[in-house]
Amino acid sequence: MEVDEVVRLPRLSRVAVCGGTHGNELSGVYLVRELLKGRKEGMEEKKKNEVEEKEQQPPSVLAVLANPRAVEQCRRYVDTDLNRCFTHAALKGPSSGAVPYEVIRSRELNATLGPKGGPGAVELVCDLHNTTANMGLCLIAYSDRDWICLHIFRHLQRQMPDIPMRYIHFDVSNQETYSLDSVGKHGFAMEIGPQPHGVVRSNVYAAMKAGVQHMLDWVCFFNSGGTFEGEYVDVFTMIKHIDYPRDGETRNITAAIHPQLQDRDFCLLRPEDPLFQTFSGETLRYEGNEALYPFFINEGAYYEKGIALSLARKRRVMVPAIRVQTEERAQVDEAGVEE
Amino acid sequence: MEVDEVVRLPRLSRVAVCGGTHGNELSGVYLVRELLKGRKEGMEEKKKNEVEEKEQQPPSVLAVLANPRAVEQCRRYVDTDLNRCFTHAALKGPSSGAVPYEVIRSRELNATLGPKGGPGAVELVCDLHNTTANMGLCLIAYSDRDWICLHIFRHLQRQMPDIPMRYIHFDVSNQETYSLDSVGKHGFAMEIGPQPHGVVRSNVYAAMKAGVQHMLDWVCFFNSGGTFEGEYVDVFTMIKHIDYPRDGETRNITAAIHPQLQDRDFCLLRPEDPLFQTFSGETLRYEGNEALYPFFINEGAYYEKGIALSLARKRRVMVPAIRVQTEERAQVDEAGVEE
Repeated sequence: MEVDEVVRLPRLSRVAVCGGTHGNELSGVYLVRELLKGRKEGMEEKKKNEVEEKEQQPPSVLAVLANPRAVEQCRRYVDTDLNRCFTHAALKGPSSGAVPYEVIRSRELNATLGPKGGPGAVELVCDLHNTTANMGLCLIAYSDRDWICLHIFRHLQRQMPDIPMRYIHFDVSNQETYSLDSVGKHGFAMEIGPQPHGVVRSNVYAAMKAGVQHMLDWVCFFNSGGTFEGEYVDVFTMIKHIDYPRDGETRNITAAIHPQLQDRDFCLLRPEDPLFQTFSGETLRYEGNEALYPFFINEGAYYEKGIALSLARKRRVMVPAIRVQTEERAQVDEAGVEE
Repeated sequence: MEVDEVVRLPRLSRVAVCGGTHGNELSGVYLVRELLKGRKEGMEEKKKNEVEEKEQQPPSVLAVLANPRAVEQCRRYVDTDLNRCFTHAALKGPSSGAVPYEVIRSRELNATLGPKGGPGAVELVCDLHNTTANMGLCLIAYSDRDWICLHIFRHLQRQMPDIPMRYIHFDVSNQETYSLDSVGKHGFAMEIGPQPHGVVRSNVYAAMKAGVQHMLDWVCFFNSGGTFEGEYVDVFTMIKHIDYPRDGETRNITAAIHPQLQDRDFCLLRPEDPLFQTFSGETLRYEGNEALYPFFINEGAYYEKGIALSLARKRRVMVPAIRVQTEERAQVDEAGVEE
């Protein structure tokens, strides 16, 4: 164990930047294509700068188009939602019979980027998503104490002060992680909106491109031995989902998000605030007892999942200072010798 | 021929209000469902008001969910775009072999609402659509001298002063009409945006509901013998479409709508104005010689059609005063007797 206040964490040698996990979330699709293109074109430039870059330690970047068949059809998925297929059950289930395309694809991705939970997995997965909700840029992670993800978040906040930015924590302590970013040793979804599915907007694309670049810069600084100061970060922990009111017989929705709530993601929703407006014009109110922060308000892909919005509680998390574990130190640590 | 300045036009006995022609344009889907529901529930109320309504002459309203299978799947279409299937060739083509679902459906709709071009067709078709473009409320019609459509447009403009509203003329004089609204004796698409496909926003739904109600009110006034004064109307006539820049090999798009153009539908686009921003960050400019009005800017469904935006010329059209043709007068007209 370290006795000083700086937490030492292993080098991030490989970073996967994934887009098109949902085939109609286009910012990530075009950004990954751009990264793949730049990789080819950038080769020669890289050689020229080799001397200068010696001091820096950039990670090896894997750009991955996660669901090419869904991208081809500009749909969220072909058979089933790929981003729910990374449970151990799905990854290790039977491979005979009618296996959905996305389950096959999740195994291919697990072979390339994982195996999930294994020592050979990539150090960091950044999975790019878009939402129709007015959420700005969010990092969504399963942990509220993954110091790598939280420090990257703070770096992006500082570098992009014009973009509303939040850290969302999906607490799955009672269930298993299921999304593509769970394959890496660290991972998060970078979710940006509002952007309609099947559409790419320049401003959203530009924010995503900047976010990815700042993330890679941070990893480079981290690997090169920089220390990142400890600080407090606001974390939004998902508490529950709320479904649309539905017709008892047809299960069709009977109301839309209320105009006073629409586009007000992360603005505190208080008991008795307007929640829905029925198609005949009636206002339905929030019946909860606790004021919570709404997000994913009117996300297009969640109608079929029975989610009109999600609600979060905000907490302040103390993130410690971190720096990379040097190789010598790692050996010492492994030998179990205290300094 | 009338010698006075008021053009007399036949009664509008039946009006079809269609939604879900594109299954993921949800305002129309939910509005048609609401109309179908209201029809059942409204029966008794109607009987009570029978005496009051004698003076008025409301049309018979047919609410139609045009593409139920696409609605079920929340997709634009299943096999092919239904709203391109109302040409005589498609309506009368072979019915054996692998006929696309939407072609079969177009024939069913033509049997219910048409036949297209025949004396038994409904007098007016209002087909409800949504767009991801920031177009406000538009009526889109094939004619710039359909006085019924133009007077309805002016009525909506007056009744809904807070909603930006335009009349778009698709000049198909060199080709055949192809959309659902072409089945009626008069017809238009009511197009409202911005709304992502697969999403319903309360404000867009409310605007569509109000638009349909004002349209039906106008038809009622018209049938009841009211005179509508002549006036000038701005008409946007579609001149051409512009596609995205694309990769020569893959045909993937290589740029998005420029941030300075995005959401600026119906704001004059001048030669050399920014048009696209490539995914590597370069600005591409409008190379045309003529300033024109852009619309359908970044419509999600048009990526596959090769349309990044459309351009229109604005003209002022003199719309004459109109009133309904009375039955006696119609008989006189038919007998060819001049007054």
